[in-house]
Amino acid sequence: MNKKELINLIKRKKSFLCVGLDTDINKIPTHLLKETNPVLEFNKKIIDATIEYAVAYKPNLAFYESMGIKGLHILEKTMKYLDNFKGEVFTIADAKRGDIGNTSQQYSKAFLSKDNYDFDAITVAPYMGEDSVSPFLNYKGKWVILLALTSNKGAFDFQFLKTENNRCVYEEVLIKSKEWGNDKNMMYVVGATQAEMLENIRKIVPDNFLLVPGVGAQGGSLEEVAKYGMTKDCGLLVNASRSILYASNKEDYALKAKEEAISMQMEMESLLKQFEVI
Amino acid sequence: MNKKELINLIKRKKSFLCVGLDTDINKIPTHLLKETNPVLEFNKKIIDATIEYAVAYKPNLAFYESMGIKGLHILEKTMKYLDNFKGEVFTIADAKRGDIGNTSQQYSKAFLSKDNYDFDAITVAPYMGEDSVSPFLNYKGKWVILLALTSNKGAFDFQFLKTENNRCVYEEVLIKSKEWGNDKNMMYVVGATQAEMLENIRKIVPDNFLLVPGVGAQGGSLEEVAKYGMTKDCGLLVNASRSILYASNKEDYALKAKEEAISMQMEMESLLKQFEVI
Repeated sequence: MNKKELINLIKRKKSFLCVGLDTDINKIPTHLLKETNPVLEFNKKIIDATIEYAVAYKPNLAFYESMGIKGLHILEKTMKYLDNFKGEVFTIADAKRGDIGNTSQQYSKAFLSKDNYDFDAITVAPYMGEDSVSPFLNYKGKWVILLALTSNKGAFDFQFLKTENNRCVYEEVLIKSKEWGNDKNMMYVVGATQAEMLENIRKIVPDNFLLVPGVGAQGGSLEEVAKYGMTKDCGLLVNASRSILYASNKEDYALKAKEEAISMQMEMESLLKQFEVI
Repeated sequence: MNKKELINLIKRKKSFLCVGLDTDINKIPTHLLKETNPVLEFNKKIIDATIEYAVAYKPNLAFYESMGIKGLHILEKTMKYLDNFKGEVFTIADAKRGDIGNTSQQYSKAFLSKDNYDFDAITVAPYMGEDSVSPFLNYKGKWVILLALTSNKGAFDFQFLKTENNRCVYEEVLIKSKEWGNDKNMMYVVGATQAEMLENIRKIVPDNFLLVPGVGAQGGSLEEVAKYGMTKDCGLLVNASRSILYASNKEDYALKAKEEAISMQMEMESLLKQFEVI
């Protein structure tokens, strides 16, 4: 999905919500455990319940890999299910990969190739530099989402280190990576818990989409994110995982997930209007 | 495998060779393609040919993931095959994972848990800081191998950035991470192409094992690595992938791989003697 199509999708759904499919078998409603494939069943019901209100879905690879090969089958089937909504959803592999060139080449094949999962985008870690990132940029209409400023406590360990250029390491990542990609094939992860940094980040990457985790369970504010991060084309995908997936752990889980998604979509619609995107 | 057992293994085999199982179906001898499972067959033959001369095996996850679920089955079977040599090999998942705490928890389960692949160690990326690394440290007798200074060209993009403390970013990673783990559960990736940096690195982490890629195909020198990086307990695992795996692309591939492994082991034995480890 290219940038224009993504923007149109956001305008059509009046939403920039990304649902993080961090599905944990220990957290889903227990009545599902009698199903043949509880996690897949859960994912399908969550997708059905939220598809009108979300523009993107982001399976987190760790949650599937931790179930072994069975988990990867579930991921494959979840992606097949999302195929039913082609053109209506942007799909992100939250994989945070990154390795030397010939290895990143293999990872790009694993996640972006039509013969495999065929995601629209993949999250990539920047530590190993250009040749670890650029192989992912060779897929037309697909995206790298590079980690810049993450939403976790550990973000303070290295990302905020000041360099001799009087910049933070995350700023160096933003600046350098602009040499590798552009706003049509590269997005950045910027945690909502760091919303006050968005104003500064927008000076460096005014037109790139930002994938923003940390709203909801991690405590970030949607209003703050929009205030400092929204562009004329929206430029934001805000992720919610636990707050939607586990809105209820009873039989009404899909309904509660839907209510949570509607509530976020309504706030997003209001912000999109406020900032004159729609 | 704990540190003492690893050191004993190195002394017994007179080798600190790690064989990187970056197996690419497009590079293995074509006569294998008629086998039911060419990549698995290749891995088994490479293991058989090198087991006397190597202390560690390091499957690179990207090469298995790029084959889809079939690739993960091959990885699983390769690990089962290595189980035949329990106590004789140290196994490393070259996965370069790293995500927020609850996600890293899932990755640690995927790679280190006895119910899944049961690797002895996993490579981890440092960008997201402490909570992205520490979940991997909760497995007794298992190891985090943290990226510090990598062997690729992109290493120069961020790892060598000078911070306001007048240190390189990779030095900050080494220093900070010593608060999270110790020389009994944490190793570091340091590329052989940066061998001259090893002297300085040894001042920061005098006793930690270093996993050193980049000897062979990438051009690093084993002698230089030993000169600057070897400790009284060896403290090194030097990886070779392509130079062993693809020593020949004909029917004699296993023999040629064996010859290459013997040649490296002999040089290693000589260095271990020179530095009085054995």
